[in-house]
Amino acid sequence: MSDQNSNKLVVVGSVAVDWVITPTAEREESVGGAAVFFAMAASPLTPVQLVGVVGHDFPAAALGDLERAGVDLDGLERNSDGLTFRWKGRYHENMNQRDTLETHLNVFENFSPRLPPSYRESEFLFLANIQPSLQLDVLDQMAKRPRLVGLDTMNLWIDIAHDKLLEVLARVDVLAINEEEALQLTSETNLVRAANKIRELGPKTLVIKRGEYGALCFGPDNALFAAPAMPLEDVVDPTGAGDSFAGGFMGHLARTGEITDDYVRQAVIWGSTMASYCVQGFSYDQLRGLSREDIEGRYQSFVELTRF
Amino acid sequence: MSDQNSNKLVVVGSVAVDWVITPTAEREESVGGAAVFFAMAASPLTPVQLVGVVGHDFPAAALGDLERAGVDLDGLERNSDGLTFRWKGRYHENMNQRDTLETHLNVFENFSPRLPPSYRESEFLFLANIQPSLQLDVLDQMAKRPRLVGLDTMNLWIDIAHDKLLEVLARVDVLAINEEEALQLTSETNLVRAANKIRELGPKTLVIKRGEYGALCFGPDNALFAAPAMPLEDVVDPTGAGDSFAGGFMGHLARTGEITDDYVRQAVIWGSTMASYCVQGFSYDQLRGLSREDIEGRYQSFVELTRF
Repeated sequence: MSDQNSNKLVVVGSVAVDWVITPTAEREESVGGAAVFFAMAASPLTPVQLVGVVGHDFPAAALGDLERAGVDLDGLERNSDGLTFRWKGRYHENMNQRDTLETHLNVFENFSPRLPPSYRESEFLFLANIQPSLQLDVLDQMAKRPRLVGLDTMNLWIDIAHDKLLEVLARVDVLAINEEEALQLTSETNLVRAANKIRELGPKTLVIKRGEYGALCFGPDNALFAAPAMPLEDVVDPTGAGDSFAGGFMGHLARTGEITDDYVRQAVIWGSTMASYCVQGFSYDQLRGLSREDIEGRYQSFVELTRF
Repeated sequence: MSDQNSNKLVVVGSVAVDWVITPTAEREESVGGAAVFFAMAASPLTPVQLVGVVGHDFPAAALGDLERAGVDLDGLERNSDGLTFRWKGRYHENMNQRDTLETHLNVFENFSPRLPPSYRESEFLFLANIQPSLQLDVLDQMAKRPRLVGLDTMNLWIDIAHDKLLEVLARVDVLAINEEEALQLTSETNLVRAANKIRELGPKTLVIKRGEYGALCFGPDNALFAAPAMPLEDVVDPTGAGDSFAGGFMGHLARTGEITDDYVRQAVIWGSTMASYCVQGFSYDQLRGLSREDIEGRYQSFVELTRF
């Protein structure tokens, strides 16, 4: 799927071992983390360079999966002094809400992302959900301003690192966040008003992730695009859906090197495609080993789902 | 907008005077009811014949609005012995949830729909949300089985009139209900599984209304169609959005006389178009007097919103 002129795509974010409990199943050592889901979703589209940290307990098999997917792990720090970031959560009956049962930052707590020289020239960069100060630090490590910088964040940083977050926002092109986060960030109750405010803070493109309801994209030319999520009978584990979405989204833009409104719309569908695979298995099980036919078939299903 | 060969569309349902309170405004005598919203939304598309009941307090101006919209009121019973059905509700800050503060059935309590002879030959029928036994009664009054019968219902009837509801379901072509109602009706937590079960109960076409998230349609050829709601900055009053959706949906099918998958998809967009106007004002304020240009312009906005 990667075009010959694909651009390299750097992602910085968490690498984790999750303990995921759903109403019907459970996986205790489920490899996750935003950077992992992002990389597994983007790598069928474009070469990914990952920045993150793991402890001595991180499964070697997962490193193998990432390598086989063509993910560059030069930027993955191996910290033998501690355990990998661990998260434990339980999904509700409807699979849309979840409770966090435990969070152990472990080696992620003092993580200071260091970009290998080979990453610093890359034209596409995604700052997954980590402290805004670290996101700024990564931006500063780039040899030059990338062509496209994407950002994710969370309620915690909106609360406790608001000013730093505003600093990052002013320096990015795309913000991809959840609906609730968009409202929280702007103290708004209406999503369109929230979107207008956010785009004044920096990012010209705003992608609102709405889980099973799809995504809403306020694009570079002020165009508004709405995409559904693929209705699925077999949602196994929603963990990582948003990060997989971001991976498909950024992956398409990096692969084509085009960031106009039309390509951004397609990117939303590529994001939705990857998210739909993600939730059909635990961890990145269903993202691993996707063929070109698989992903083009699912993309085509979105065409069918939305045409009128 | 009405084509020369438009089909007449009968709607049976509530006619009400609501007291609507939103976080920023309030209207004490807000004409509403499922049949009214449905009729005001469908009438720009096809001739509507309304069946319902009002009391002596129902505003004459509203009757005038319906008449000017071309709605046939021969089937509207005027009961001078009592008050019109009244509902009072308050919307939450996000405008998506609401609390019912008061419900007074008044003349609606002993309503027994009676179809004028001129209605009984109509080819398109929508049974808005009333007791399933009355819906059955209306079906039996039709001279022959209409070409297309649509149905709405609510959690109350799913709870207390389950068997009667199943009887109606077996006799209709389209069910248009809310997401929560679809799950409740089937005791399912997954919407796709719920949809499959519902379609085994009778209706070949199922439209799941998801409020600000749009609609999902399981169509006559097993095709799945997802449509967003129009993101709006100025939601004034969501009351009647679902009924307006149903009006636009059924109105398009009656107008064209076509009920294939392609027309059902367009019908969902016409429903979304009418719902988007409905919520931009109190009562049917924004549905009243819509020009052909207005509605075709909004339909075109949906094309723009969803294309990729």
